[in-house]
Amino acid sequence: MGPIRIAVVGMGKIAHDQHLPAIAGNPAFTLAATVSRSDSGVDGVPHFHTLQALVDSDVAIDAVALCTPPQARYDLAALALDKGLHVFLEKPPGATLAEVDALVAHAAKAGTTLFASWHSRYAAGVASARAWLADRQITGVKVIWREDVRVWHPGQAWIWEPGGLGVFDPGINALSIITHILPDPFFLAEATLEVPENRAAPIAADLHFRDSRGTAIHMDLDWRQTGPQSWDIVVETADGTLRLANGGAVLTLPGETLRHDDHEYPGLYARFADLVAQGQSDVDTRPLTLVADAFLRGKRLVTDAFFD
Amino acid sequence: MGPIRIAVVGMGKIAHDQHLPAIAGNPAFTLAATVSRSDSGVDGVPHFHTLQALVDSDVAIDAVALCTPPQARYDLAALALDKGLHVFLEKPPGATLAEVDALVAHAAKAGTTLFASWHSRYAAGVASARAWLADRQITGVKVIWREDVRVWHPGQAWIWEPGGLGVFDPGINALSIITHILPDPFFLAEATLEVPENRAAPIAADLHFRDSRGTAIHMDLDWRQTGPQSWDIVVETADGTLRLANGGAVLTLPGETLRHDDHEYPGLYARFADLVAQGQSDVDTRPLTLVADAFLRGKRLVTDAFFD
Repeated sequence: MGPIRIAVVGMGKIAHDQHLPAIAGNPAFTLAATVSRSDSGVDGVPHFHTLQALVDSDVAIDAVALCTPPQARYDLAALALDKGLHVFLEKPPGATLAEVDALVAHAAKAGTTLFASWHSRYAAGVASARAWLADRQITGVKVIWREDVRVWHPGQAWIWEPGGLGVFDPGINALSIITHILPDPFFLAEATLEVPENRAAPIAADLHFRDSRGTAIHMDLDWRQTGPQSWDIVVETADGTLRLANGGAVLTLPGETLRHDDHEYPGLYARFADLVAQGQSDVDTRPLTLVADAFLRGKRLVTDAFFD
Repeated sequence: MGPIRIAVVGMGKIAHDQHLPAIAGNPAFTLAATVSRSDSGVDGVPHFHTLQALVDSDVAIDAVALCTPPQARYDLAALALDKGLHVFLEKPPGATLAEVDALVAHAAKAGTTLFASWHSRYAAGVASARAWLADRQITGVKVIWREDVRVWHPGQAWIWEPGGLGVFDPGINALSIITHILPDPFFLAEATLEVPENRAAPIAADLHFRDSRGTAIHMDLDWRQTGPQSWDIVVETADGTLRLANGGAVLTLPGETLRHDDHEYPGLYARFADLVAQGQSDVDTRPLTLVADAFLRGKRLVTDAFFD
């Protein structure tokens, strides 16, 4: 079997920064096409303005990576599955949970691979953190995820619209890590969401979760951080403190600090190739479920208007 | 095996109006205790102010029916499962999706039955509606659920708090029916939620869903209806129109109208007895998922203050 002929759909920042290099660096894939309303393609690779135009063309593909905003993702994924293509979904996998459930059923019927990717789970320290926590007694968890939205999402209007997640767009990365490394299920007990008076989505959130043993998990999300940025997870255990810093890249355990090179997107594409080879899907909706729960259960406060 | 000794927890309106008569009318159950912060028990039946006091007592029970507001349901269910009791959950099964998922895992570990009840699925016309629609081509669905909150939820402050569902408290009944009778999965495309300026939860909602074939499903929820109340579902098909009126009680198919007696709660308790006998659980979170999606994806409008 030759390499998987993949098309990248939605040629924004994340496609250029992460997807294209990861595809270029993995011999299991070959970039067969790009799709974008704009003309931001890749030299020498067929470019289309819509996915429909690509599937109607004579360019042969086996898979698509969907990097568009979540509000537009379902229709693209459904079209791809109808055509028997394997689908790689950027995070979050959809704008709603029910549409992701519908895609899971669709992929099962189509017999193709659906992969809901969570890139932060492939951050360098995460696998070791998960292994270290697996049989430890956890006494408390703190997540501090504070960044400057003007730096990371300049002018991205969709992220503030209904179905864009606001500060949960980065926050869901933290949730994708802690759902992966904490051994017990957890759920929201109380939340406060701060929403700018001129926007639909929150700019900050204070979240109190509890796990099934009653352990408290506190999460502090804020998009108004200037200066040094914080993407830290601290897990207190009976055997000492685990720290994951830099979004999961740097792991500190009692007595040692582990640093590895970044391999988030290469890790995701290696996983996608494995899933395709094995004829399996991998769709874990827990991070999006926790975000939906925060919108469902959380108290909303109106705060100062936000202007880019 | 004798009858299932059941305790009813949360002796509010729904417990008195529905649960107690359904339990009294089913020989598979015997009412063994009641639990409520108030003294609103039943003559001749042991009454406790907390579930903990009941499980610490010498009153033997096999199961609990939890009729408290959803914000308090998880801890009660977890305590019951820890004690090896079967659990009947009023709708909605919890204040968040993740806590319900945690209970499912807990019940599986405990080896007891967990039943997330949706009483409207047992309305007289629903089973026939489901059978009639199973292999028909559906071209459109309309749900009109308009009632007077002052009549149905007088002074229920919790329903307006975060985690109370506002107008989705009745609306989730309609969702429990349409997730049951429509053959294809569906999901939210667009929603507008109207929230009174002095409350946390919506008083009205306009919801546009689509199914996986692209069929439109429109839902009109409103708690400000005075005069005649509307709980109607209209399904257009290639073979004519199906109407479910009165919350599912009256079914009209092309050429015939079917009326049956109400049997919602007797139906639920018959189902619960079957599940206990078979050692199974039944937890369908799709109705709550669609509500969470509406909070996640919907546009919020502030509307006039609401006073009881």
